[in-house]
Amino acid sequence: MIMRLDRLIAEIPPPSTPDPNGASVVQELLGGKFGEMSTFMNYTYQSFNFRNRQGARPFYDLVASIAAEEFAHIELVSVAINTMLTGAAKKKAGKKGALKDVKDARNTQQFLAGGAAAMVQDSMGKPWSGDYVNASGDLIGDLTHNFFLETGARNNKLKVYEAVDHPAARALTGYLLVRGGVHQVAYARALENLTGADMTKLFPSPRIPTDKIPECKPHIKRGEHLKLYRWSPNDFQELSAVFNGPHPETGEELEVAEELHPEGALAYDLPAQPAVFAPGPEPEEIEEIAQKLRKAAGLPKEPTGEVANK
Amino acid sequence: MIMRLDRLIAEIPPPSTPDPNGASVVQELLGGKFGEMSTFMNYTYQSFNFRNRQGARPFYDLVASIAAEEFAHIELVSVAINTMLTGAAKKKAGKKGALKDVKDARNTQQFLAGGAAAMVQDSMGKPWSGDYVNASGDLIGDLTHNFFLETGARNNKLKVYEAVDHPAARALTGYLLVRGGVHQVAYARALENLTGADMTKLFPSPRIPTDKIPECKPHIKRGEHLKLYRWSPNDFQELSAVFNGPHPETGEELEVAEELHPEGALAYDLPAQPAVFAPGPEPEEIEEIAQKLRKAAGLPKEPTGEVANK
Amino acid sequence: MIMRLDRLIAEIPPPSTPDPNGASVVQELLGGKFGEMSTFMNYTYQSFNFRNRQGARPFYDLVASIAAEEFAHIELVSVAINTMLTGAAKKKAGKKGALKDVKDARNTQQFLAGGAAAMVQDSMGKPWSGDYVNASGDLIGDLTHNFFLETGARNNKLKVYEAVDHPAARALTGYLLVRGGVHQVAYARALENLTGADMTKLFPSPRIPTDKIPECKPHIKRGEHLKLYRWSPNDFQELSAVFNGPHPETGEELEVAEELHPEGALAYDLPAQPAVFAPGPEPEEIEEIAQKLRKAAGLPKEPTGEVANK
Amino acid sequence: MIMRLDRLIAEIPPPSTPDPNGASVVQELLGGKFGEMSTFMNYTYQSFNFRNRQGARPFYDLVASIAAEEFAHIELVSVAINTMLTGAAKKKAGKKGALKDVKDARNTQQFLAGGAAAMVQDSMGKPWSGDYVNASGDLIGDLTHNFFLETGARNNKLKVYEAVDHPAARALTGYLLVRGGVHQVAYARALENLTGADMTKLFPSPRIPTDKIPECKPHIKRGEHLKLYRWSPNDFQELSAVFNGPHPETGEELEVAEELHPEGALAYDLPAQPAVFAPGPEPEEIEEIAQKLRKAAGLPKEPTGEVANK
Amino acid sequence: MIMRLDRLIAEIPPPSTPDPNGASVVQELLGGKFGEMSTFMNYTYQSFNFRNRQGARPFYDLVASIAAEEFAHIELVSVAINTMLTGAAKKKAGKKGALKDVKDARNTQQFLAGGAAAMVQDSMGKPWSGDYVNASGDLIGDLTHNFFLETGARNNKLKVYEAVDHPAARALTGYLLVRGGVHQVAYARALENLTGADMTKLFPSPRIPTDKIPECKPHIKRGEHLKLYRWSPNDFQELSAVFNGPHPETGEELEVAEELHPEGALAYDLPAQPAVFAPGPEPEEIEEIAQKLRKAAGLPKEPTGEVANK
Amino acid sequence: MIMRLDRLIAEIPPPSTPDPNGASVVQELLGGKFGEMSTFMNYTYQSFNFRNRQGARPFYDLVASIAAEEFAHIELVSVAINTMLTGAAKKKAGKKGALKDVKDARNTQQFLAGGAAAMVQDSMGKPWSGDYVNASGDLIGDLTHNFFLETGARNNKLKVYEAVDHPAARALTGYLLVRGGVHQVAYARALENLTGADMTKLFPSPRIPTDKIPECKPHIKRGEHLKLYRWSPNDFQELSAVFNGPHPETGEELEVAEELHPEGALAYDLPAQPAVFAPGPEPEEIEEIAQKLRKAAGLPKEPTGEVANK
Repeated sequence: MIMRLDRLIAEIPPPSTPDPNGASVVQELLGGKFGEMSTFMNYTYQSFNFRNRQGARPFYDLVASIAAEEFAHIELVSVAINTMLTGAAKKKAGKKGALKDVKDARNTQQFLAGGAAAMVQDSMGKPWSGDYVNASGDLIGDLTHNFFLETGARNNKLKVYEAVDHPAARALTGYLLVRGGVHQVAYARALENLTGADMTKLFPSPRIPTDKIPECKPHIKRGEHLKLYRWSPNDFQELSAVFNGPHPETGEELEVAEELHPEGALAYDLPAQPAVFAPGPEPEEIEEIAQKLRKAAGLPKEPTGEVANK
Repeated sequence: MIMRLDRLIAEIPPPSTPDPNGASVVQELLGGKFGEMSTFMNYTYQSFNFRNRQGARPFYDLVASIAAEEFAHIELVSVAINTMLTGAAKKKAGKKGALKDVKDARNTQQFLAGGAAAMVQDSMGKPWSGDYVNASGDLIGDLTHNFFLETGARNNKLKVYEAVDHPAARALTGYLLVRGGVHQVAYARALENLTGADMTKLFPSPRIPTDKIPECKPHIKRGEHLKLYRWSPNDFQELSAVFNGPHPETGEELEVAEELHPEGALAYDLPAQPAVFAPGPEPEEIEEIAQKLRKAAGLPKEPTGEVANK
Repeated sequence: MIMRLDRLIAEIPPPSTPDPNGASVVQELLGGKFGEMSTFMNYTYQSFNFRNRQGARPFYDLVASIAAEEFAHIELVSVAINTMLTGAAKKKAGKKGALKDVKDARNTQQFLAGGAAAMVQDSMGKPWSGDYVNASGDLIGDLTHNFFLETGARNNKLKVYEAVDHPAARALTGYLLVRGGVHQVAYARALENLTGADMTKLFPSPRIPTDKIPECKPHIKRGEHLKLYRWSPNDFQELSAVFNGPHPETGEELEVAEELHPEGALAYDLPAQPAVFAPGPEPEEIEEIAQKLRKAAGLPKEPTGEVANK
Repeated sequence: MIMRLDRLIAEIPPPSTPDPNGASVVQELLGGKFGEMSTFMNYTYQSFNFRNRQGARPFYDLVASIAAEEFAHIELVSVAINTMLTGAAKKKAGKKGALKDVKDARNTQQFLAGGAAAMVQDSMGKPWSGDYVNASGDLIGDLTHNFFLETGARNNKLKVYEAVDHPAARALTGYLLVRGGVHQVAYARALENLTGADMTKLFPSPRIPTDKIPECKPHIKRGEHLKLYRWSPNDFQELSAVFNGPHPETGEELEVAEELHPEGALAYDLPAQPAVFAPGPEPEEIEEIAQKLRKAAGLPKEPTGEVANK
Repeated sequence: MIMRLDRLIAEIPPPSTPDPNGASVVQELLGGKFGEMSTFMNYTYQSFNFRNRQGARPFYDLVASIAAEEFAHIELVSVAINTMLTGAAKKKAGKKGALKDVKDARNTQQFLAGGAAAMVQDSMGKPWSGDYVNASGDLIGDLTHNFFLETGARNNKLKVYEAVDHPAARALTGYLLVRGGVHQVAYARALENLTGADMTKLFPSPRIPTDKIPECKPHIKRGEHLKLYRWSPNDFQELSAVFNGPHPETGEELEVAEELHPEGALAYDLPAQPAVFAPGPEPEEIEEIAQKLRKAAGLPKEPTGEVANK
Repeated sequence: MIMRLDRLIAEIPPPSTPDPNGASVVQELLGGKFGEMSTFMNYTYQSFNFRNRQGARPFYDLVASIAAEEFAHIELVSVAINTMLTGAAKKKAGKKGALKDVKDARNTQQFLAGGAAAMVQDSMGKPWSGDYVNASGDLIGDLTHNFFLETGARNNKLKVYEAVDHPAARALTGYLLVRGGVHQVAYARALENLTGADMTKLFPSPRIPTDKIPECKPHIKRGEHLKLYRWSPNDFQELSAVFNGPHPETGEELEVAEELHPEGALAYDLPAQPAVFAPGPEPEEIEEIAQKLRKAAGLPKEPTGEVANK
């Protein structure tokens, strides 16, 4: 089971100039073979399918806990895409030309199937597939896979950083490069602990100088490159059995965070995009109904949820 | 973000006689178009992509919160499948014939790609696809979809109940039929509240007499057919604005649960299946290493995680 | 069985300036999940697979008859796409640069695999899939699906209208919005009749003011928003048992048309596109052979088929 | 546009012993690469996309008219499958074990996703794909393709005949082998007429002695191996320009039929399969409602549609 | 088994101005349904699966030998694509904007998943599929398929020639048009020899005047349009039994080449593209390591492999 | 370019009792994500796309040379499958019941689409996909991938060994386990050489005691677990720079073989399967034609090709 916290794992700047083609490229980090849907689902199913988990508890805890963080990553990529698309469909619904810039966009389905929003697709518009999940049940095999997956994922993140200039994309990739690095180290450490192989010499893999990337720096400064969170009020207590020792690049000590999860950031309440009916052609009508329902239910007049732009 | 609780949303009986073909059929409830991957991912992306969420807060809270429950459902289906496969690969690895019953099994990849475990596939072995996600951003459109999705999902659950006799499958479908019904009612209520359409006359849809199905009864008795959980320590406070009024079948009052989530059940620690290397051909070696690592990290000698069979 | 009439269900203007990217977007209405291939095939297979059809005759007739109209819709979308692509490959075959504008086109396969023509694909070039057919056999379930499918389809049609300015695309979407509305009402009425649920309050769904869209108006004026055709010389006599009562938006009376099908329009004979070998690099050679064969068979000298541009 | 006739193109015997695995194999003739969905959709899109159709009228008429017959073929294959599945889900809905034989069936989705009915899939449960359509616009290329497609299709039909013993499958393949042969000859003749290549020496291709197959004989006796139908009240008048001369195997004269289409046969009204909710768990309720609606609409008391079993 | 020769089957010019969209179009010739992956894999599997090969030796030899040439074709198409992409990612890794032109490219995965390099995809970015292989085992059926496949493949090659102006694309298509023609003739001859059908009248199919295409001329001059290579030191001795007689277009005599394979050309050593980490962000480090390893192994100081640009 | 040798890389026993379900399972080793199509195509495209190959020559040579061996592996798996299917379709074509055992087979397409032969599919009948190729261009990333791919591939091979008892399957897996091990070591050594990471401690990975598997032993005895072949008459001279040092499991010295490739074995000429038209319903007719063609071409009366069963 999970509990959901309505907070983003990191801050994404508010909408600015829309960038549909940029958003189409960022999709690779969501629904691509090495995107966050893959990391989330791989670790999640590996944890579901873990056999003899008591006997291998530290490893189970590691995979299960990282899985939880990946949910926050699919959320963050989606938010970045949605932010980049905001403004591209702001015209009134039903008017010829209201979406005319969409005609030449790389990913038309972000608008035709979605509401100027993220699709469960890669950068070529191909859907994410359950085929991308490798959960063989063989612990060493799965850890080898996970190490490889994180390597490929970071490779993709850097390339997207190089290609897409929108502030939301930069904030996103800056953050994910740092956290992906932690997960990669975690799986390398697990392999070392199980087999004795000295994996640290493989780092950085790929060769990404996060300490020189402006968008990575603040996260490194906060120590985000060293910490593994536990992502559970009571469970996953044995992370420290695997995740310890010096960071292979900086030599600083790896640590299991004291806090259960990062504090997180409030999401912006992204404005309606009427031309794509999101959340409808006349958002005010929905607001009005919501207001009435809230009143009838004895709830406060103002929405109880918190957002960044209020 | 999410927090993960290492508990199952409902009880699944311990392994008994393995039933690989039964397990292959249950896959439809995991990776089929109307399976739990679809419900989980549809509501999750609808919540990520929700525009003007403050204005439509009760509806946002509804979708976002149900999404969280669906994670517990993909977990439960996986556990049921894993339970049903336990024992089918218990022989020693590397011996001719160790998997000889697998040759005629409907889903060979549960063994060849997985460790006698769930795949992200449907009952024909086709992978779940991101194409199964409908998140148009149009609130009425998405709620109509969700109502239809839950209808199809319950139809599938009943059919699996009729087809597969294994105790794990029966416990699974008995529970999911009840909870799927609640979600279906929730979306119908949301549509009613938005449009005034009297959707209650559609119930039950499909015509499933859960009150006569032995495996549903205990859950109904506990009121599980009436309650919506909030699935968050602090968020999703406005469910009651939408989820209220009489249950369309029984007339009992719908309610937002006081507890944040069901208490849940401890999972069984499913035994190793050495013939498929899960978690390895010699699970004891992993245990030994885990033991050493635990010790080195100053952790208790016994695994800290709780399981049902201890 | 079917009989084919070589007429289009509505008029599409003749070719003008080619618009390959526009044509790539219109593909969503052909091969997308909510495109006309989906409506055609869903209702067709629901009718093939309908059990106890005598007992449920009015519903069988409804689904089977609407299926027939959808064939005319896949035809119309294809013609619109073909019209939009006409002129983009008119150069002589075999010359460097004869297709140079194609290099940057969104859908290259309209030219490489097709003859400047429609593909059985969506707006991202992904093929239509049999997976898009939902024919569960459960009448209420299938009608719920069909209502949802038409809702999504109209949503897509409006978005394409907003995005693509070509006269063929506008004529297409203007017509389809009106007819899609009729089908949506038909399925809603069927659900009401079966269950008593007052579905009319859901309309319009989505909120599309067809009466204000210039390209819809002439069709509404002709009453096309109120009529269901029978599409059969002798069969499907029981439509009126389901399709009756006031139109949920205008209050006008719904009616089963007296004529079996719309009169239809002659298609333009779209000119050869030699650069893509359609119908060949030297169309005149084919003409000559055709002429000889026609003569040898005792057929009139002039082609017997009628087209708009003659 | 099409008009639909509620008749089957050939007779399929009534349900007898159900044969789910046989029905799963017959799916290859529906949704396989060489199945009837492929022939139907290939010729349909080739006709939609045909350029300079006036100049090439006899060839346009040929392709467009054969397309219409293929609709009757997807219908016939579906009916055969539905017949073979009838009885396999006849138990009361909601009872454990009501579908217990389905657990080991090759195609579980015929029951889980369908109502004991045909899926738009091949014999391995993979969905038919728009990718199977080849409509290059190049007339000679497309005719070459069509000749190859019919060759592959007949190959498949014979193999299914050899593999599946159910009376419905035998009636189906016996008929389709004969008609597929006519289409193959038609495309060969079109190629000869266009290029002068003597294709007749390729026959039979593949080497299928239809005159010795008991289920083919009655159709051959009726001359069904020689006739091309026009499938239109007024159009497709130029078939005789292409389809003429001696049959390459028997030497008999090919002919364009005087009647527009085969007389056809009434379909059996296949009984409800309550265990899969087709058309619902309590078909009588639907009957009762239908009866009331029929009455209210002033329709006859008895269903107006004709079926074989009444 | 195969032996690999590190030579290209034809010359591709060195990198010049990069052309990502052109390269995305050329992908159709690699991973499209009619691309070289399809020709390579079709003939390869037909040869693996060939039954009674002794009895049908000349045909087995034909298919098996042409298969070998197709490997050289997938290699050549890949090299052309790689050449066209060279320079598009030459900036230093890790810098914002290093890939900024990629954002609007048609195929982003050539950069995100690949190292500015060919993908196993078609021109829309869809992966090549094993479904494109037709190996029915029926010799006449398979030869009919192969003839059709080569027809479609040449059609595609000409269209790519017309669309893409880059020197690498032109050199590629000029060469492949000529060689594809030889394979098409070979399969037509095989069909004639087996059945007596006079297939030569179908030529050219499609109507491609290779003798007027500048990029084809030099290959025709060298007689490449007449020769079949044996592609084996000792095997495939019976090609001449099938491949003989006059060329259907030119009347010149077809011949089995005396040399086993074309001489071939050295490949250019395409430069590193650091922005996509190919072969890494700092290629010199790899060079240095390679140098040391070479030394330690007693190999010459200079690389032993030959390339064109040295 | 490649040269083809009509020899198998290892011996597969002649046909015995057919085992269609066994053959369907072996497909995982051909078209599965970790099958030989994946190893062949991954290394092949990595070699095509290798940038700065002179600077990294030893690594280029390694990948390019192993690629060539993988062709022999797809051939060997296909032959094993074909052997296992031989006899299952030996009845006369066109007779009812000639394929009756196929109705319940796991993979019907081996018979319906193929000629009792291998498909480019996995063990669930899903086609191999170009998506399975990872060729990022980043040398360390690709080597990490390859190491992981070989790990997964060996895992699959052992499981198939455990599941399928047919002599052809056992001979196949026995051989491939040994050779896959060599490739895995090669990639591990490459990684070590590039980064210094001590990968040898990961072995065996997965834990497969090949020295205790009877079908592996003869290959180990011949030293096949230690040798890398060069697979080229003149190229790939720098393998020894990477492939050297002690074998991580046995401590024996790794070596580059003096012979270019294994001697190989003659293939059995698998008999016709008339019921599936392979190579046709009357193989003797083809033989007769072949005989005449051979004679006309001045070839020896007896087929020149060598097979094991002559």
